[in-house]
Amino acid sequence: MKRQGIVFVISAPSGAGKSTICEGLRHSADFVYSVSCTTRAPRPGEVNGKDYWFISADEFTRHAAGGEFLEWAEVHGNCYGTLRARVLELVAQGTDVLLDIDVAGARQVRGQADAGFKPTLVDVFIMPPSAEELERRLRKRGTENEAQIQTRLANAKREMEEWRDYQYVIVSGSMEEDLARFRAIMSAERCRSRRWL
Amino acid sequence: MKRQGIVFVISAPSGAGKSTICEGLRHSADFVYSVSCTTRAPRPGEVNGKDYWFISADEFTRHAAGGEFLEWAEVHGNCYGTLRARVLELVAQGTDVLLDIDVAGARQVRGQADAGFKPTLVDVFIMPPSAEELERRLRKRGTENEAQIQTRLANAKREMEEWRDYQYVIVSGSMEEDLARFRAIMSAERCRSRRWL
Repeated sequence: MKRQGIVFVISAPSGAGKSTICEGLRHSADFVYSVSCTTRAPRPGEVNGKDYWFISADEFTRHAAGGEFLEWAEVHGNCYGTLRARVLELVAQGTDVLLDIDVAGARQVRGQADAGFKPTLVDVFIMPPSAEELERRLRKRGTENEAQIQTRLANAKREMEEWRDYQYVIVSGSMEEDLARFRAIMSAERCRSRRWL
Repeated sequence: MKRQGIVFVISAPSGAGKSTICEGLRHSADFVYSVSCTTRAPRPGEVNGKDYWFISADEFTRHAAGGEFLEWAEVHGNCYGTLRARVLELVAQGTDVLLDIDVAGARQVRGQADAGFKPTLVDVFIMPPSAEELERRLRKRGTENEAQIQTRLANAKREMEEWRDYQYVIVSGSMEEDLARFRAIMSAERCRSRRWL
């Protein structure tokens, strides 16, 4: 039996534990991370085609104007986007793809599904166990100042209101629990009978 | 966040590895096995209320006439059935229930869902990797004579045609793989956002 690839989407407010899940998943060979395009400059150690596709603003604008992005956004003056063609190519080969995108990006991808983007979409929201715990985790990272923490918390609360738009919600517990649940969702979705051709 | 219990259904042709999965699941405390009623006599070691509810033919008929069974069947002159009330009670408490029933039983349960049986139903079919492997496993058990093996194989092939009616299909591999996949389905289904009240 054969099947098409599945497009998995993972979203979470910062501090909810998404990076940890993604890091843990990197050891799995059974799917491909979608590499985004970005107009921002590579940071030391970042590799083109692995961390991002580093492209010029002109090229980005051309892709966007051509409707070639599954989703894209401008963040702090830099653009980030996922090219549809690459995702479709992988899916057609039967490869599962993981998109690590925010709530707004997920909304765009879902919109494309309505408009004829055919691959199966499975979206997962990582929910912080509570607002207090989210704040605790953000402060523990020690990478943001007070104003940034307040901004992130406000954003997080806004994003958390959209959890019902996702097919799955993982209420974040320990790193191992979150990772096991995400893997379970991937494994289960692969057993869905309607996937099989 | 709270949720109602989920009714998990597991079906498989004999020799597909279902007993092994169910045995492995017995060590989980996170769901309840549905105990069927039967009119057959207890075998040595069988415990009333654990292996089956052993009831009289009269009592069985009364339950059936009252429409109290989620599903029931007569096999070799004995009747087997699942009482709806007990399942509903568990589900209302937020407890997940596992029904180990055949293809015909699953069809009956699905029919009840259409007719207003409200709990979430998640049905899983265990598919033998191939007809040859199924035959090999049946022969290996050494519990059936040639005629019985042929009957079971014919039944299995008929049942295998219904796999598309199930939401999930596990193509049986090793015992550990099957068990891990079934557990993944349970875990994933518990993360479905629409489950949460």
